[in-house]
Amino acid sequence: MTYCVAMSLDAGMIFASDSRTNAGVDQIARFSKMRVFAQEGERVIVTLSSGNLSITQNAINILEQRARAGEELNLWNATSMFDVARLLGDTLREVKTRDGPYMAQNNIDSNANFIVGGQIRGEVQRLFDVYSEGNFIEATPETCYFQIGESKYGKPVLDRVLERDTSLVDATKCTIVSFDSTMRSNISVGLPIDLVVYEANALRIRMQRRIVETDPYFQMIHAQWGAGLRRVFAELPAPDWT
Amino acid sequence: MTYCVAMSLDAGMIFASDSRTNAGVDQIARFSKMRVFAQEGERVIVTLSSGNLSITQNAINILEQRARAGEELNLWNATSMFDVARLLGDTLREVKTRDGPYMAQNNIDSNANFIVGGQIRGEVQRLFDVYSEGNFIEATPETCYFQIGESKYGKPVLDRVLERDTSLVDATKCTIVSFDSTMRSNISVGLPIDLVVYEANALRIRMQRRIVETDPYFQMIHAQWGAGLRRVFAELPAPDWT
Repeated sequence: MTYCVAMSLDAGMIFASDSRTNAGVDQIARFSKMRVFAQEGERVIVTLSSGNLSITQNAINILEQRARAGEELNLWNATSMFDVARLLGDTLREVKTRDGPYMAQNNIDSNANFIVGGQIRGEVQRLFDVYSEGNFIEATPETCYFQIGESKYGKPVLDRVLERDTSLVDATKCTIVSFDSTMRSNISVGLPIDLVVYEANALRIRMQRRIVETDPYFQMIHAQWGAGLRRVFAELPAPDWT
Repeated sequence: MTYCVAMSLDAGMIFASDSRTNAGVDQIARFSKMRVFAQEGERVIVTLSSGNLSITQNAINILEQRARAGEELNLWNATSMFDVARLLGDTLREVKTRDGPYMAQNNIDSNANFIVGGQIRGEVQRLFDVYSEGNFIEATPETCYFQIGESKYGKPVLDRVLERDTSLVDATKCTIVSFDSTMRSNISVGLPIDLVVYEANALRIRMQRRIVETDPYFQMIHAQWGAGLRRVFAELPAPDWT
């Protein structure tokens, strides 16, 4: 399983993904699910992926190979994030058309999802959720974040804290709490967390970090959030029904 | 969708279920998903159900009808909760065998799950999770609660708070918080909540309650838990990575 979340806020964007991949409990490995394509002053594009790893890796590899080969429309010359989302959706369909039927013969799930976002010079920042069928939706001010993978455990804190005008620092903190909640309830989501914080209109990445088990900030959040929840729970009055 | 949770603790048991049923967003209705079979001094049996409503209702109706008809083994004369779980699993299989193929023709999901628990005189209290295939597992001291339906949003608070020796009052509070978290993130789970609190070895139910929208305790928990989470979040230090 996987957990990825991305947000598009007034102050900028946040992208985060876990690094655990499993094909059965005896085959657990670490794979980064984040890819960054950045050219300072020109574009910052970040992809997050979940689902079948061979499908998502193949799609990204094809995108990269075509960008290097200088195809007519590619990651490095697209003039809008909408075109980038379309490229990614098309490439996903291509890989699924090629590999899907063979996987289906052995009941292997070929579902694969992407979040893609960032900013290209001349446009505002934009964020897209690319479904497994290759179609996609864009984040709006009312719905400013997307999750893919094991999304439910980490959603309540996002719903309670995140607003369009939340600061990047608070949104980063919220992201860490969201991952901590997910990892506590589902062992198939695991550290390290890949994190990118993008300031609106910077057209470069100022903060990219891999959060590992020994990260003191993560350990502190893990301990204090759990203790805080238990404290709030203890302070709630007991029911007087009995 | 549905959310049901049941716990088997040192002090007794708690059963809770929501009351929203939907077959598409334009067909939302209220149905209790809890049934109580109690005979003071003899037995207390509680069932919670999720999944296809026609399947779960039919299974319970058949169990009741056979109990009234005085079949050789029925809900009122079974001498162990294990036999009750087996009866329920068998009846579920019977209904799915009868109706399942017709539903499959129209791609209608016939999945249905039960939690069943309680106490029969001569035995300790016991709690079972009956899967859609009719097989079942029993709660143990290490895993003292079961959830069915939309279980993920309400699981983190159970994981953080609930222990085998949690008091019934705290476990009731925890149950309400778990429902509040679920209903906040998933509109297909809705009030009222049916709640039963059973004291170990009482062989009668002292507390059974239907928690509706206007319930002051529920409203208080809803407000204070949300405010408490935001307070804990605000108190967490910000990352110093940037």
